Amino acid sequence: MDTKTVRIGLVGFGTVGSGVARILQENGRDIADQTGIRLELACVVDKDITTPRVVSLAPGVLTDDLQRLLDDKSIDIVIELVGGTTFARDLVLKILGAGKHVVTANKALLAEHGGEMYRAALAVGRCIAFEASCCGGIPIVSALRTGLAANDISGLYGIFNGTCNYILSEMTGSGAAFDDVLKAAQQKGFAEADPTLDIDGTDTAHKLAILAALAFGCRVEMEDISIEGIQNVQIEDIRYAREMGYVLKLLAVGEKDADGRVSLRVHPSFLSQGTPLADVGGPFNAVSVFGNAVGNVMFYGRGAGMMATASAVVADIIDIALGTSERLFERMPMVTERRKPANFKKIGDIQSRFYIRIMAKDQPGVFARYGRILGKHSISISGAMQHEGAGPENTVPVIITTHPTRQKNMTAALKELQSPDILLGTPVCIHILDIPEDKE
Amino acid sequence: MDTKTVRIGLVGFGTVGSGVARILQENGRDIADQTGIRLELACVVDKDITTPRVVSLAPGVLTDDLQRLLDDKSIDIVIELVGGTTFARDLVLKILGAGKHVVTANKALLAEHGGEMYRAALAVGRCIAFEASCCGGIPIVSALRTGLAANDISGLYGIFNGTCNYILSEMTGSGAAFDDVLKAAQQKGFAEADPTLDIDGTDTAHKLAILAALAFGCRVEMEDISIEGIQNVQIEDIRYAREMGYVLKLLAVGEKDADGRVSLRVHPSFLSQGTPLADVGGPFNAVSVFGNAVGNVMFYGRGAGMMATASAVVADIIDIALGTSERLFERMPMVTERRKPANFKKIGDIQSRFYIRIMAKDQPGVFARYGRILGKHSISISGAMQHEGAGPENTVPVIITTHPTRQKNMTAALKELQSPDILLGTPVCIHILDIPEDKE
Repeated sequence: MDTKTVRIGLVGFGTVGSGVARILQENGRDIADQTGIRLELACVVDKDITTPRVVSLAPGVLTDDLQRLLDDKSIDIVIELVGGTTFARDLVLKILGAGKHVVTANKALLAEHGGEMYRAALAVGRCIAFEASCCGGIPIVSALRTGLAANDISGLYGIFNGTCNYILSEMTGSGAAFDDVLKAAQQKGFAEADPTLDIDGTDTAHKLAILAALAFGCRVEMEDISIEGIQNVQIEDIRYAREMGYVLKLLAVGEKDADGRVSLRVHPSFLSQGTPLADVGGPFNAVSVFGNAVGNVMFYGRGAGMMATASAVVADIIDIALGTSERLFERMPMVTERRKPANFKKIGDIQSRFYIRIMAKDQPGVFARYGRILGKHSISISGAMQHEGAGPENTVPVIITTHPTRQKNMTAALKELQSPDILLGTPVCIHILDIPEDKE
Repeated sequence: MDTKTVRIGLVGFGTVGSGVARILQENGRDIADQTGIRLELACVVDKDITTPRVVSLAPGVLTDDLQRLLDDKSIDIVIELVGGTTFARDLVLKILGAGKHVVTANKALLAEHGGEMYRAALAVGRCIAFEASCCGGIPIVSALRTGLAANDISGLYGIFNGTCNYILSEMTGSGAAFDDVLKAAQQKGFAEADPTLDIDGTDTAHKLAILAALAFGCRVEMEDISIEGIQNVQIEDIRYAREMGYVLKLLAVGEKDADGRVSLRVHPSFLSQGTPLADVGGPFNAVSVFGNAVGNVMFYGRGAGMMATASAVVADIIDIALGTSERLFERMPMVTERRKPANFKKIGDIQSRFYIRIMAKDQPGVFARYGRILGKHSISISGAMQHEGAGPENTVPVIITTHPTRQKNMTAALKELQSPDILLGTPVCIHILDIPEDKE
């Protein structure tokens, strides 16, 4: 039983980078026992080479000279952990240019410049591994690539952004408004100083682009995904829907219908209380996959954080060192040019149930008007709720839930509803998602 | 991008075997696209070659002549799906003797004859793959082997037996007694005609032996696992504990303490309502893993069934065809002779909370006697409940829950409690399991 030593480079010695160094120090011997690969952190590049980190490196390993890393022929794999998409893009191209494999956790980079990166990797016969880019330490990329490869996948539902899930969980638990919860989350370190990419759904969409490509075997560009964030979520709607048995989550949804048409979207979604994804709280992530053989499989874990992300980075290094990643890379749907483009369904064509809140004028005949307008657009009401007590300008909140209907029907109905003589302001409209049940 | 053809043999053309054939027919092209491996089912051996199955094979593929399969040098991988441990043992040795890799879903075979099988495989440089032996289609073997390889694992908690989970879920839901629910489960096909190995915990222990070896990096024999089944579970206890916020599950528990001592056990366990494993209902399986880097990761899915198991079998074939399994096989903790034996903790030494039900004589001073006896054995009461209303022979059920204590203290206390002047019959004692929470 030979043990092979693999020399690793790392660029970006921040939180996750320190986590990787710590894993290699603390668990390196067990990893070598289990895989036959001794991982040696040979060179760490960061512009800051003086601030002490939670781990200390062997003398001479830390440097601010990227070229030293690129020139070191003994280093075969480089971990990119610098973040952003500008310097990171150049960096990855340089690493590949130096003939080294790349491990990255940078979903924004892959979602925005993936095509260019993958072509560059193919050109030099190297691979890019990105388990850490989606759902922290959950081995979901590996599961879709091989563990579930026997399956034709019809559905992928996920909670991919810990910040949003934390905010929505806190709003649900405390009844506080979005802005207040966001502020508290920032103070606790659960939200970034600039949380835009998290709360507007972009980060969730970046991850959906990667996982949907793997699940449905197609290339996915950001414009193929319909995105709606949580920035406009109002606490009233969380409260009303809760009375009706629903919990609000920012969900990534990928579905393939019987005709092979793929629908990809990110939006706030009401899920039935007590269903597995509805119960995922706080900063956790979860992915629920439906395969034609395996049925429903769900994965749950920490979506981010120093050590969870580092765990996935090290898993990627092991897969590269074993040769698995290299062998599968050129066939990954986002990499190969051979896959025919997917047939994406327009968002207007998807079927969904909806939750609508209308600030209704409290006068005779108003409810009947709503019913007529919805009926005209073939929308069938599944539930309705009106609490007694007045809102502003003699209005009352009316909640209506619908049976499944096409989104474009709902859009048309909402436009027609928007008449100042029967309601105040704009109706609130949120998807209700019935995740298929896996029954005998 | 070359596509390599791998010729597969299959012995045992029953439910799961038919599922494998169906996956290769329906999803074979996608599998080839994604992995570069065209899987060809070249020879299927079964003693029944006439009964029609849900899939039809190409002419000449089905045979009752095992020797034909063994002699076919073009077949590199053979799937063993015959079940049992006698014929299956001989069969696996023959397949290995013919120089072929083995894929099996047979956990009983591995738990009882694993050592012999693994040595035989090592001797001929072939491997045995067994993703399908644990938790159906959930890729948990692969996750422990590589996806979570960066982690030092401290805890593994699982619901591994769909029959038991179905029975306990039904008892909880309907309030019916064990025997009635078992009978109904047999009629619905959720329990075998002879369900002994399921309900007595043996099947769960077989799977724990495999997964604990991978998680904790040690060999595990069946005698290292303390096993208690669900055959004596009474509906009253499910009902009383539910009032106190607990749900009953048959749980496999693997824990490693700070000193590296490993405790392995299978027993009915009360879990707090609303925690992830407590919510796993019906015939589903789940595995919750705690790693020092990744924190808590949970996997959930169908634990058995034709297609879910077949999904895992095909995943194993892919891993062998890619070379991953072969490369890692000789280092697997159950295979290598190099790992030092684990330091197992005796069941008496584990710490646990307990639920006790005593049919108490309804007379003054009795409760104080219980308290004194428990206190004498250093057992601290965490909760108590006594409903009004009489049981048989002027008794009332008294429920006591305890703080963590050593199991041997509880055993000693139970012995002393067993005094006919203060209670009727034998106290019921069930573990309460507080699965660690993964918090920031």
